[in-house]
Parts: sequence; C-alpha cells; structure tokens
Amino acid sequence: MDFKTDVTIAQETTMKPIVEIAEKLGINDKAIEQYGKYKAKINELELTDLETKKDGKLILVTAITPTPAGEGKTTTVVGLGDGLQKIGKKAAVALREPSLGPVFGMKGGAAGGGYAQVVPMEDLNLHFTGDFHAISAANNLLAAMLDNHIHHGNALAIDTRNITWKRVVDMNDRQLRFIVDGLNGQTNGVPREDGFDITVASEIMAILCLSMDMEEMKEKLKQIIVGYSVAGQPVTAGDLKAHGAMAALLKEALKPNLVQTLEHTPAFVHGGPFANIAHGCNSIKATKLALKYADYVVTEAGFGADLGAEKFMDIKCRLSGLEPAAVVVVATVRALKMHGGMAKKELKEENVLVLEKGLPNLMKHIENMQTVFNMPTVVAINKFPTDTAKELALVKEKCEELGVNVVLSDVWENGGNGGQDLARAVVDVAEQKSMLTFAYELEDSVVDKMTKVVQKVYGGEGIVLAPGVKKELTRLEALGFGNLPICMAKTQYSFSDDKNKLGRPEEFIVTIKKVKVSAGAGFIVVLTGDIMTMPGLPKIPAAESIDVLADGRIIGLF
Amino acid sequence: MDFKTDVTIAQETTMKPIVEIAEKLGINDKAIEQYGKYKAKINELELTDLETKKDGKLILVTAITPTPAGEGKTTTVVGLGDGLQKIGKKAAVALREPSLGPVFGMKGGAAGGGYAQVVPMEDLNLHFTGDFHAISAANNLLAAMLDNHIHHGNALAIDTRNITWKRVVDMNDRQLRFIVDGLNGQTNGVPREDGFDITVASEIMAILCLSMDMEEMKEKLKQIIVGYSVAGQPVTAGDLKAHGAMAALLKEALKPNLVQTLEHTPAFVHGGPFANIAHGCNSIKATKLALKYADYVVTEAGFGADLGAEKFMDIKCRLSGLEPAAVVVVATVRALKMHGGMAKKELKEENVLVLEKGLPNLMKHIENMQTVFNMPTVVAINKFPTDTAKELALVKEKCEELGVNVVLSDVWENGGNGGQDLARAVVDVAEQKSMLTFAYELEDSVVDKMTKVVQKVYGGEGIVLAPGVKKELTRLEALGFGNLPICMAKTQYSFSDDKNKLGRPEEFIVTIKKVKVSAGAGFIVVLTGDIMTMPGLPKIPAAESIDVLADGRIIGLF
Repeated sequence: MDFKTDVTIAQETTMKPIVEIAEKLGINDKAIEQYGKYKAKINELELTDLETKKDGKLILVTAITPTPAGEGKTTTVVGLGDGLQKIGKKAAVALREPSLGPVFGMKGGAAGGGYAQVVPMEDLNLHFTGDFHAISAANNLLAAMLDNHIHHGNALAIDTRNITWKRVVDMNDRQLRFIVDGLNGQTNGVPREDGFDITVASEIMAILCLSMDMEEMKEKLKQIIVGYSVAGQPVTAGDLKAHGAMAALLKEALKPNLVQTLEHTPAFVHGGPFANIAHGCNSIKATKLALKYADYVVTEAGFGADLGAEKFMDIKCRLSGLEPAAVVVVATVRALKMHGGMAKKELKEENVLVLEKGLPNLMKHIENMQTVFNMPTVVAINKFPTDTAKELALVKEKCEELGVNVVLSDVWENGGNGGQDLARAVVDVAEQKSMLTFAYELEDSVVDKMTKVVQKVYGGEGIVLAPGVKKELTRLEALGFGNLPICMAKTQYSFSDDKNKLGRPEEFIVTIKKVKVSAGAGFIVVLTGDIMTMPGLPKIPAAESIDVLADGRIIGLF
Repeated sequence: MDFKTDVTIAQETTMKPIVEIAEKLGINDKAIEQYGKYKAKINELELTDLETKKDGKLILVTAITPTPAGEGKTTTVVGLGDGLQKIGKKAAVALREPSLGPVFGMKGGAAGGGYAQVVPMEDLNLHFTGDFHAISAANNLLAAMLDNHIHHGNALAIDTRNITWKRVVDMNDRQLRFIVDGLNGQTNGVPREDGFDITVASEIMAILCLSMDMEEMKEKLKQIIVGYSVAGQPVTAGDLKAHGAMAALLKEALKPNLVQTLEHTPAFVHGGPFANIAHGCNSIKATKLALKYADYVVTEAGFGADLGAEKFMDIKCRLSGLEPAAVVVVATVRALKMHGGMAKKELKEENVLVLEKGLPNLMKHIENMQTVFNMPTVVAINKFPTDTAKELALVKEKCEELGVNVVLSDVWENGGNGGQDLARAVVDVAEQKSMLTFAYELEDSVVDKMTKVVQKVYGGEGIVLAPGVKKELTRLEALGFGNLPICMAKTQYSFSDDKNKLGRPEEFIVTIKKVKVSAGAGFIVVLTGDIMTMPGLPKIPAAESIDVLADGRIIGLF
C-alpha cells in the first residue's frame, strides 16, 4: 500500500462550502460568520431557536495511557463522527484547536489522520480563525499592563519577586523559558525574573473554554491572579483594570468555529487548553452548541482517561451540567504491548503474553469509567495491520469480563466506513440509562480531593505533600478557593507520578509538589512533577520541511 | 455641537455586506474570502481579468511635519475617497492596518476619524483579519529556529553577541525592550542579550508590503539576515531553512483585505510597516489591486512628507513601478502655528504672524513634491472651527506663489460632502502630465544617497558619519548591498535630526549614527537617532477604558 501524507489526502478532498454544512445542521444563515469559504464562526446572539431545542447525546472519546506507539484518539473521534453519519445519524464532532508549537516542532498537524481528518487541515494547523492569537494578545496585554503599573509607581505594591503571570507565545521556544526582563535603566521597566509559556498553557485559554458567554468570561478574566502584593494579598486583572480590554480582544475568539471532516460531518473546533495544568478539552460553548444541532456529538479529552476524562467529568461537566451518554476508550494492541514491556521496534511481532501483561492498563481505565463516573463504556481498538487474531481475541475476552463491548475501528484507512461498527456500538450503549458521578465533591477539602483522585482514578495508595504545600493550601483555603475543583498536573505516561511505571501500577504514592490557584479559570492546579509549559524544538524541526508553493498549496505538513 | 466618539459614529452606521462592495468594484465572487460579513481577503489567484485591465490613477496623501496639534492624514485619505465617490468617480482608498500597541496605549484606533472612517473600526483595530499575528508568528518562528540551532550545537557558528534578529509582539511593552534569555541551565537555551520589538517594526512587515507574490516574498524571507557568524559572515533565514515555514504562516496575510468607509467607498487595508526603520506604506499588492478596480485610488504615506512621501517614491514606487498622478499635502492652520512657535494651548487664538513663521514648513514640503519628485501637488487644509479668514487667506496666498491650489477639507465633520472640493481639485491636477523622478539613483554610493536625501529633501547641508559607520558601510558594500535604496530613520518632528527644530530649519547637518541592512526587505536602514522600536504604555493606558458589552458591542475605542 502506498502511503499518502495527511496533507495530500486532505488536499485531494473537495470540501463543501461551510454554509452548506451549517445548513445541514439547521443553523440559520445570519449566525454564520465566514472565514474564507470553508471556515466559519457561529454568532450565538443570532440564534433564536436555542431555548426550544432538545440536546443530542454526548459521546466522550478517551484513551489508555499514551505510549510512543500512538493511540489515534482524535482520528477515532473524527472517524466515529463520520461512522455515525454513515449509519444515518445526525452527527457532529467537537474538538480542540491545534497549537502552532507542535506543528513546527515534532508532531506536525493535529486534525486527525489518514481518511479521518478535519479540513481544511492546513488552515486548522496554521492560525485557523485566529483564536489562539487573540488569547496570546489578551494574555500579553495583561502582562504589559502589570509591568506598566509597576513601572509607573506600583501603587498596588506588587512584589516583583512574586509575580505569577507570564507572557505567552504560540511557538516552541525554549529560549524564552527563563528570562530577565526590564533591563537597561529607568526608562525600560523594572528588572525581574520572568519567563514565557506556550499559548495553550495560558489561563485565558482555560477561561475561554469554560465560559458560557461574554459576561461570564469577563468575570473570570477579572479574577485572574497575576501575583501577590508585598503584604501577600492577591493582585488581580481586575485590580489592573485590564479585564475589559482583554475581553474586547477575545470577543471573536469566544465564538465557536465550524469546519467539516473529509466526509462533510460538521466539526466544531474551538479552544485547546493543556491537559496537565488545565483541563484539556474544547470549549463548553462549542460542545453545547453542537448538542443543540446534532443528535450525536463526539468529543475528546486530552491524554489518557486518568487525566483527560477525569477532568472532563470533574471540571467541564460539573461546571456546565454536560453529561456524556457514553464513553469510548481507545486502545491499540501495539500500545498495550508496550504497557506489557515490549520495545517499540518489536511491536510488529505477535506476543499474547506481553499483551496480557499490558491489558490491565486498559482494564483500569474501563473500570474508572464504569465505577467512578458511572458511564456506559465501549472499547475501540484502533486497528493496525500487525494485530493478530489471537491478540484481538484476548483483548475482547478481557473486556467482556467487564461487560464491555470491543469494536475494531479502521477509520484511518477507511474513514466513516471503518467507523460504522463503532458507531452502532456507541448508539447501543448510549441508550442505557446513566447518571454521571464525580471522583470527589466540591465540598471535600483540597487534600481529600487529591486523595480521592489518586485512590479512585489512579489506583494509588494516597498522597504525600512536599514541603510548603500544606502552608500554601491553608493560604488558598483562607483566600476562599477551597471549594474549587482540582486540576491534576501529572505525567501522562503513567497512572502514577513516575512516567516509567507503565501498565497498571499499584502500591504507589503520589507526591504533591506544588499547588496554585487559577482563580479566573476556577480550579486549583495540583502539580505532581515538573510540567513543561514551554516546549522546545527538536534538532531538526518539522518547520524545515514545510513550504508553500506558488499556487498557495502548503507542503510538508503531516 | 455634541461630539460623538469615533466608535459611536462607526457603530451608528449601517455597513453594506462586503460582497456588495466587491461587486461594485467588479471583483468576481470567487476571489472573495469573507472574514465575517464586513471584511474580506482577495485571492488574486482567482482574478483572471487583471492583465487586461487599465490602471486607475494613484493619489498620494502626505502631510507637513507632524506636531501635537494633529494633521488628520488618514481622515483626509478616507474623506477624499468619499469625496471622489460623491462627485461620481469610481474611487477606492488604500491604507495601512493599525497596530494593537497604540490602541491600548495612547492613541486609540487608527482608521480615520469623525465622519471619515473605515469600518468596521473595532475589527480593524483589534486583530482585523489576523495579518499582524501571522507576521508575529513568522518572525518568532525564525527567532525560535535561530536559538534552537545554537542550542543544538550551532553548526553555523553564529556569534551570540552579534544576533540582529529580535522577537516581536504586537503590544506596547517596554518591559521586553532589553532582556537576557536562555537562562537556567543547559536544557533551556543559551544565555544571551536579547529584546523584543513591536510587530510593525519586524522586517517581515516590510517584506510583506514589498512583495508582489508568494515566490517573491519567499525569496525575500530567505535573504533576511538574522546575525553574523564568528567569522563575520551574514547568517540568513535561508541558512536556517526557515523561509518555507515562514511563508506558510504568511500565506493568508499576503492577500489584500477589503473593507469600506462609512460611505461605502471600498477600502483596501493591508500591511503597516513603521515609517522610520521601514518604508511606512501599505502593501504594493493592495495598491496595485485597488488600481485595477478603481479609477482613483487614494493612499497615504507615514509621518510627514520628508519621511513618508520620500520613501513612498524612492522605495515603494521605484520597486513596484507605481507612479502617483498627484500628491496631496495635508496641513492644518493649528499645526502651522505650532511650527511658527506657538504653544498648543494658545492655538485657538488668531495669529497671522506666527502662522507666517510656520508656513515655510508647508512650503518646503510642497517644493519637495514639485522639484524632487516632479509631482502635481494640491494642499488640503484640514479645517478647524478656530481657523480665521485671515489665516486661511495667508496660507492660500503663499501656496499660490508656488502655483499650488489650496482646498479646505471638512471631512471629519461632513464626510464625503466635506471632501468634494478637494476631490475636484485632485481630479484636475491628476490630469497634468507628470513623470516621477527620485531623490537619488540606486547606483549612487550609500553616502551619496544619504547626502542627496538630506540636501534635497530635508534642506540640510549634508551628513556626518558617527564613528564606525564608515567601516560598516564598507562592509555592507562588500557584501553586495551597495545598490539598495536607503530607508532613513529620523525623528518625524523635524526636517532635521533634532526634533526641536520646527518649521523649515536651515544650515543643519544630519549625523548618521548607524547603518544596517534589511537584506530581505531590500533596503539599507540609516539611523540618525535613537529610534524606539518598542513603545511603552502611558501611566493610564487607553486599555483601562476599553470594554465589551454583553451584546458584543465594544466601548472606549477612540
């Protein structure tokens, strides 16, 4: 078989005008703000029929603990959406927007793959409708106003050694991780230690994704803590009178984007927060909007289910009242063999024993969906040519012990046709009665919340607090943040906080290294390790191969 | 009279759908890429009728030396466009895009004023179609690839003390002017002195505005010099293999934008380079496109005519073959009185003597247009209620001595109606036969070019080179850059290099402090003073008053 690159497949497809896609959904023309012929923003102020409409069913796609073998979560979301459409359902997908950083770094594009992609993939991966740039601008306006306040006399008595707000750039740029700025004398600011994050790590990204409307977003922006005064009091964006102008910068970004899959399934692509220091899912606005106009909406959560699905439920669903009708856990035989201890280059060999050793990773994720969150669950095996019948049979057998249906998915190669079986299985389980439960309650103490997530979701014994964390927790609770949900920032490569513990580790204790509040977004970030919030480029960045031809065609995007 | 703010006037206007504006011009629908209902990009690859079309007439609007009294150059461009339309001409305007920096700093919006504005003014001032963000991203990708190259072994032996490429952000942020980055150990880059410019100062902005198509832009991007090797050899974006990915980021930004004035005159708004370290006019592409579809295209150049118009002719026109049919020099009686030595708060008093002392500033600019560039010239007096009949008569008398018609313009208050007289005068002089001449020839030595601009355009005696400049010139000429045009970076507040010398200074010598090549943009930047390439915010930034209401309306933009 000749492999075509994703961008080639995408460019060979004839897209439908985005107004046709919107029409198919029943979105009125007035609400469509086109960005070129194949992208649009939806202006909800022009939608008058929302109140009367019944919501469709929400399907969450999550995955086993990621390995270098890859799982294909986004690809499965797209293929499942196309599969649902193929079997006659009115379906849509709701995804995150890609960041420019990885596009030029390692990974290339992030809009699905093969014959299960969202298009126009080049636009999606390069600027799209400008949302991330708007977030960067709002973030950096706040930073500029903060330093400007200090420069002009510092009336709020901000402690320049205790500023928590960083500037951002949507680029992998390690050179900016740690800087000293404000140098070169009195007219050029105040010297201090500083640093940049990548845009997806900005608290504003999380705020945009968690706000239902302009008023709510503005209120959240106002509450952002940028640092602390010398007396230890929080200083907010509201104190700096920055939230209005920030909101003005975010006015268009707040509107959900509409594009399409290769098979013309409507795709709402909006927002993209990190899945460690933030909650890792697309915007509540886009998900809710999709549910109004489609009977089945397929969405995804970041990383494995221990991080992504947990936050999807405990943060996004709790805040918004959203409730999935079913969860799909994506796995590959290859990845499960890596969890069993196999090296990447040996994965094409059949090995039932090592697969059996790796399977508990999948089992634990399924159990979590069933018992912690009370969700009807399906397993999607993203098929590879090297999977053997024996291996597939073993996965099936083990999952059936948990009462879970396993479906082969072949969407990378066959698009919606390869996703029909999965679509049927999902429609089936989504008929079951379910009622979402959470891993913890907001009234629990922060220590209890962390402990419950570690014990129930990760399968660990408990937590231990690093020096200083207890004091910080007391402070956060005194400031009134005790009832916020928590956002666990943990390695995505293990249930535990040690990335080398694959499979289903047991008897581990998670060390809480640091806690901090994202007062605007409305959660407490719990850091269990060093989380990289500004990636670097590899020795040979993907950017070196990207080019654009005279006719405007982009090449080298994967 | 009750004053309405610009944003109120703008929001009270009913815009026409941008497709109607394009239709009026005769641009085929396929080439229109809508960004919402009132903005569009024009995809020239879809325009098949360009070759056969005759060009309209280009009218350059420039101004006297700026003072704090204001001149209203952009407002005049818009009002003249509307005036031409009013008298039955097929007209368009071609303007620069505003930068976010001033919007949140001092100045507020930059899309004309009063009843002579380009709309939607909020969008125009906030992100617009994303061009500046694309430029920032391309600029910062190059910076990230540069530092990444050094981090991964520095095969090109780049001297980290001789890096000329800076990162940019579209924000007034003095804190970033001088920084040290790459701190905190081996995994986080290589420590070095660094700094940020505002986006409009990026060489990529100039390149975008000087490129006719993708191929040309890519070639220019490739030639950008980012720094020098330890052996003193230039290191380019091409050496870093960055130009392809940069071009991909700029693919959409290269397409001209179309909006409209309050009176629905088509407005091509595209690009916006600084007028000191760059050439200060909108893109060649937009100007040429406008000329294909309108009979009269009104455009502007940055700052006063000594800087803006000189570069418009010597750089933009020379490179592109564009040739204005007429030049409008904008002045106000108030500003001329400031040139005569009056303080700003006294300007409302009639004072013919001080006006007479200030008038030589206007006279010199007119003479330059006539004798240096050989252009038919009209003077537009942007009317203020405090102007007296005696004062206006004096301006008229002096201009008529140079054979130049003076027209009162009242566009701020009356839009196109207030610009009809000016429109008629412009149509008249544009009938004259003219043939653009330049201030210098490309074959002149760089020293001769600088001397000619200073003597002919500024009216000074000559130049003196600061220590080191001669050596640098020798180096640039040896590297093959001797035949590039020059881009003078001088204070905009005086013909001389001393901002306190108002009016028409004489017997001055300009000190050349530094020269450097913008090898991608294709000019040698000549610095005659410290040019601020990263502004700061004032003590009370305009941002504090900007807000957005629940219905999406933006307030506080002026």
